[in-house]
Amino acid sequence: MPHDNLPIDDAPQAGTALAQLETPALLLDEARMQRNIERMRSRLQALGVAFRPHVKTNKSIDVTRRLLPGGTGPITVSTLLEADYFAGHGFTDILYAVCIAPNKLAHVAALQDRSVRLSLILDSVETARLLADERQRSGRAFEVLIEIDSDGHRSGVKPDGPELLEIARFLEAAGIPVKGVMTHAGSSYDSPTVEAIRAMAEQERAATVLAAQRLRAAGSACPVVSVGSTPTALFAERLDGVTEVRAGVFVFFDLFMAGIDVCRVDDIAVSVLATVIGHRPDKGWTLVDAGWMAMSRDRGTAGQRVDQGYGVVCDLQCRPIEDLILVGANQEHGIIGHRSGRPDNAPHLPVGTQVRILPNHACATAAAYRHYQVLGPDGALLASWPRFSGW
Amino acid sequence: MPHDNLPIDDAPQAGTALAQLETPALLLDEARMQRNIERMRSRLQALGVAFRPHVKTNKSIDVTRRLLPGGTGPITVSTLLEADYFAGHGFTDILYAVCIAPNKLAHVAALQDRSVRLSLILDSVETARLLADERQRSGRAFEVLIEIDSDGHRSGVKPDGPELLEIARFLEAAGIPVKGVMTHAGSSYDSPTVEAIRAMAEQERAATVLAAQRLRAAGSACPVVSVGSTPTALFAERLDGVTEVRAGVFVFFDLFMAGIDVCRVDDIAVSVLATVIGHRPDKGWTLVDAGWMAMSRDRGTAGQRVDQGYGVVCDLQCRPIEDLILVGANQEHGIIGHRSGRPDNAPHLPVGTQVRILPNHACATAAAYRHYQVLGPDGALLASWPRFSGW
Repeated sequence: MPHDNLPIDDAPQAGTALAQLETPALLLDEARMQRNIERMRSRLQALGVAFRPHVKTNKSIDVTRRLLPGGTGPITVSTLLEADYFAGHGFTDILYAVCIAPNKLAHVAALQDRSVRLSLILDSVETARLLADERQRSGRAFEVLIEIDSDGHRSGVKPDGPELLEIARFLEAAGIPVKGVMTHAGSSYDSPTVEAIRAMAEQERAATVLAAQRLRAAGSACPVVSVGSTPTALFAERLDGVTEVRAGVFVFFDLFMAGIDVCRVDDIAVSVLATVIGHRPDKGWTLVDAGWMAMSRDRGTAGQRVDQGYGVVCDLQCRPIEDLILVGANQEHGIIGHRSGRPDNAPHLPVGTQVRILPNHACATAAAYRHYQVLGPDGALLASWPRFSGW
Repeated sequence: MPHDNLPIDDAPQAGTALAQLETPALLLDEARMQRNIERMRSRLQALGVAFRPHVKTNKSIDVTRRLLPGGTGPITVSTLLEADYFAGHGFTDILYAVCIAPNKLAHVAALQDRSVRLSLILDSVETARLLADERQRSGRAFEVLIEIDSDGHRSGVKPDGPELLEIARFLEAAGIPVKGVMTHAGSSYDSPTVEAIRAMAEQERAATVLAAQRLRAAGSACPVVSVGSTPTALFAERLDGVTEVRAGVFVFFDLFMAGIDVCRVDDIAVSVLATVIGHRPDKGWTLVDAGWMAMSRDRGTAGQRVDQGYGVVCDLQCRPIEDLILVGANQEHGIIGHRSGRPDNAPHLPVGTQVRILPNHACATAAAYRHYQVLGPDGALLASWPRFSGW
């Protein structure tokens, strides 16, 4: 029992005041989260598509149950550990949205043996051949989507290129029907305006629908057309031909999303509770016990219109304090300074003062924590929800 | 039991081949680690100082037992969770090297009640007053070191300023003897040459010894003079007046340390095992299943002479493959490309190929994993060592 000496049941009890929480701690504002979920849900209802939320951001059964009260799926995962965890909580319809590698097939089989309908993705004949070999060897059935490149940012095959049909031919010949196509328009994160996001959403839709049409014309059933990213899901004007949407970070939002006008700063549902531990008045610095381990090394806002450093510093009601940001971070030390860099502009926060720091990227920040400390509308701790990380 | 559905005993067995490991996985080359430990140990023996290794990098009882076969300390920690864990494994002499905050005093008391001699640090009268209040309230004794600013990079009081003696007077009057002084010359990480590191080591030594001398002249016993950082510990030419050295990252090293000539690339003991999952030949990209969640968002080498992207790509024997680096990273996707950016220069690595990726920053990368997969000299898996993260 290697971890016998690590406390695993150290979650604070409901009713604990923030002042009693040891810091750093990850706070989750339940009302903001619920509002974010409702926004996405109503948007997708209006567009007439199914929702397959990406749980990589939250990695928590409690958050995911708010997303999907039914509790069996559909969900999207980024790791097979996520699939394990949610399968253990009764979820059976799971899309693993990273191209499958041969050393994960034993794990896939173990999930199938637990009655999980696990959909896999791939974007090459090379991988299709590995799956076909495995099908031949084991007799197992696989549900496979072909990944489409809708914006050139990462993986996938071109919707109008020859590889798409080659892969489908190879799969169908091996007895693996093409279940569908999927894409992730990651470039939407770099869209400078809401108009650009709308255009990207249409590009994402059109590419994926085109790929599905070509596959159907070539004889595949291809019932699923899956798209997704938080920006395109929220700003798409139409999703004709799309059957489902995947998105994850919207549940919490973050400064990066606020920086491209996908949300407002006061929609951000997660923050890091930190405590002032010292000062450097000559530099205008306030030191807190939340460094990059607590915030993550993500500096995504550095390339945006407003660089938020390692995060925006707020009071306990989550209102930004003047222009304070985390200007620097070591492993367990954060340095609060004024955005202007002028030492005189920073207010004095006494040692022991607690602040809440909004993160650049919710997925990266949340990954460092074992719990969400869930706050009710009055700021009291409602619950402590476990989450996990790793593979 | 919130985590009942999360597999926690999924560590591979000794003798497993790398090809059978699910990826990403964190590999630890035992021989390199042992060599790194011997290098530090012999250096500190030659300098005639005690060693108080920083365990924040490894967060593993198995690694720490290699550092300190005695198994009771002294160690340095960056979180009280580290103190809990190592106390549970018998370590009793622990320095918590982040200025103490009032909301951690109940935790400190709980550690003291487990017979841990926990040393605390502070750098202000404000914090000294909080400790004095707690001493008055609870009657508890505290072992306290004053943090010294030896290089202006973060926290601490000036070794020659008035605050040092004010803090000491306040503590001693409250019945809290000053146990010592400590500093961390974090600026050594930015030293462009080994000569600059040597100069920084002397600056670190001189500042701390000066502070101790002033405290002793003012009547404090101040038996401990504690300095530390991997670069200064390895390149200090003398440590007269210093009683102990703290360092942590040397046990693994990383590309950042190699970038300032503190180690060679083939001293780096941790690497991330990843699997090829696809290609974009038009861009010269090879996609792997290790993104920034597996490597961390640390881009510390971006400001060095050689920017290593998100890591240096090696073969299974950990030899760098030509000039391949991780040129980009999404959450679970890494993009391998040639350093030159020219698509034609990258060799084809078939789907399923495993590579080992050396990290920019060992502390940040290791934090994402629940185990070290320990490799023997023949590349076979010797053991799986658990590690932890969080607070």
